[in-house]
Amino acid sequence: MFTVSTSPLIHPNIRNNVFMPRRIRLHTSPSIRLSIRSSSSSSRDTGFTCIDGKKEAKSIRDEIKIQVSRMAASKNIVPGLAVILVGDKEDSASYVRNKKKACESVGIKSVDVCLPEDSSEEDVLKYVLSFNKDPSIHGILVQLPLPSHLNEANILNKIIKEKDVDGFHPENMGLLVMRGREPYFVPCTPKGCIELLHRYNVEIKGKRAVVIGRSNIVGLPVAHLLLNEDATVTIIHSKTKNPEEITREADIIIAAAGQPNMVRGSWIKPGAVVIDVGINHIEDPNAPRGHRLVGDVCYEEACKVASAITPVPGGVGPMTIAMLLSNTLSSAKKFITSNDL
Amino acid sequence: MFTVSTSPLIHPNIRNNVFMPRRIRLHTSPSIRLSIRSSSSSSRDTGFTCIDGKKEAKSIRDEIKIQVSRMAASKNIVPGLAVILVGDKEDSASYVRNKKKACESVGIKSVDVCLPEDSSEEDVLKYVLSFNKDPSIHGILVQLPLPSHLNEANILNKIIKEKDVDGFHPENMGLLVMRGREPYFVPCTPKGCIELLHRYNVEIKGKRAVVIGRSNIVGLPVAHLLLNEDATVTIIHSKTKNPEEITREADIIIAAAGQPNMVRGSWIKPGAVVIDVGINHIEDPNAPRGHRLVGDVCYEEACKVASAITPVPGGVGPMTIAMLLSNTLSSAKKFITSNDL
Repeated sequence: MFTVSTSPLIHPNIRNNVFMPRRIRLHTSPSIRLSIRSSSSSSRDTGFTCIDGKKEAKSIRDEIKIQVSRMAASKNIVPGLAVILVGDKEDSASYVRNKKKACESVGIKSVDVCLPEDSSEEDVLKYVLSFNKDPSIHGILVQLPLPSHLNEANILNKIIKEKDVDGFHPENMGLLVMRGREPYFVPCTPKGCIELLHRYNVEIKGKRAVVIGRSNIVGLPVAHLLLNEDATVTIIHSKTKNPEEITREADIIIAAAGQPNMVRGSWIKPGAVVIDVGINHIEDPNAPRGHRLVGDVCYEEACKVASAITPVPGGVGPMTIAMLLSNTLSSAKKFITSNDL
Repeated sequence: MFTVSTSPLIHPNIRNNVFMPRRIRLHTSPSIRLSIRSSSSSSRDTGFTCIDGKKEAKSIRDEIKIQVSRMAASKNIVPGLAVILVGDKEDSASYVRNKKKACESVGIKSVDVCLPEDSSEEDVLKYVLSFNKDPSIHGILVQLPLPSHLNEANILNKIIKEKDVDGFHPENMGLLVMRGREPYFVPCTPKGCIELLHRYNVEIKGKRAVVIGRSNIVGLPVAHLLLNEDATVTIIHSKTKNPEEITREADIIIAAAGQPNMVRGSWIKPGAVVIDVGINHIEDPNAPRGHRLVGDVCYEEACKVASAITPVPGGVGPMTIAMLLSNTLSSAKKFITSNDL
């Protein structure tokens, strides 16, 4: 009989798979900046902090690696992630490669299936159903977007909820949203945003949060994660008439609109904390490839006003993949626990 | 072969089972009140409107009654609603009686099951599973709250989604929340709130809405219905630090906190529209029974500031039952359509 390890996944202060360190107060008055842990290498004399997602993601991956090797040693089980890619979109292929590399770096088994662009729904579902049954696979994800002839919802809904590590199933979303319920998995990017706030000791309870964007993948779930932690949340979007004015009321801003440099310095209340989820390519003749990545927030302006902000790249992006690894490991742990019962 | 009637359920201007009349602009500047349709019997010289839920609910029931009798004539099918009541809580028994009466008034078949307080989960599930299979039943609801020894989620989750006319299943909530998806049913009270806004031609798109309360049954779904209609939505709750100040920013206020008279006149922006979902019993020695019903909004103060408000009783309450009938009729229509395919 196996003995279930009780050592934590990420950190001793963990609750519901979300990191829960001791909180400190968020200072939001105009003259007082966010007080963060002094160990941050990005702190400057001004009190401004660049939230280092790359560093935090590495630290999470290191912790996951230890957990994975303990699981292999004590249970002879290796967590497995299956990724299904349909078509040859370069962005998607690159994301899948990064996920594969990240899995390898922590010892998670990664199985990739690359299907041609003109695959039918049945072709894709054949793999989904096979991975659903495969006991060596604990997480399944279908890389989005799918080619337009495929029905995304039909395919995603077929992944069993216990392996839906992306957390995109409507029932999972319902459970995430509802009071007193727990989702199977918290979707990776929103989980990464909240994890960064926790790791930088940003107090959420009672704070005003503005989420810019209402996508199923980021905006909506992150709004509910903040609400579940007792923030007062406003969701703004393309039909909002005065986004600047409303955003300026926020102690915490999550920008997930997909609009390069949309959030200017004037949108930000002095001392606010800004999480920039945007990943936008813009032309830049001075950049080696003629373009560069920017977020939804104008970093140069924001860093003069905010107390802390995530850069792009190196902010939320690396956290998303770390959270995918974390969800896959959690899933493997749950499978072990349920088999032990 | 049956011919499916294409006549609308509620009104010619309907979309996704939600009434969609031609909108007029909501005037929210301090000096200009909401312009509503002039036929309202509650209009006063001041331009203030008492939103008459009782009247609107009657009008909806009348329309449903016509639809039900047409369905019986053309398809020989009577929509059926099963209500399961566990225990002898007087409030719950009274709600069930009201639902039964409302069903009878429009020709919907109503089947009630009253089980003793100490019923087991199996006892309740036996009826749920039987109604799930019963082709004469198109809607099933379990009256809440259940006795504390029963697991509410376990029982509600067993109602098949096609008959979950309360819309409380997590997957239904997920579908309601997600962009580009449609729920099986919109939960009755939130649907009633939005229906009143539509019927009083209150413009929602681009307006600031504040939802007070984050319950699974009202606050959360109504926030998403408003968001789906392009309002900019803020959810406030017991941990919000300055609810008065935030509420005062709203063009539309939905009060669903369960706190008698919480929203005072000073919380309301002049010209705002207020939907009061609260049903609170307070002591009143002058009332015949020693108590009376009040909402979450202090009506006497609010009606001097708001352009329109629902009274309690006679506002949202009657709409909730009308929406239950509407969902049951919709369900019967969907069963006919799917059998015709």
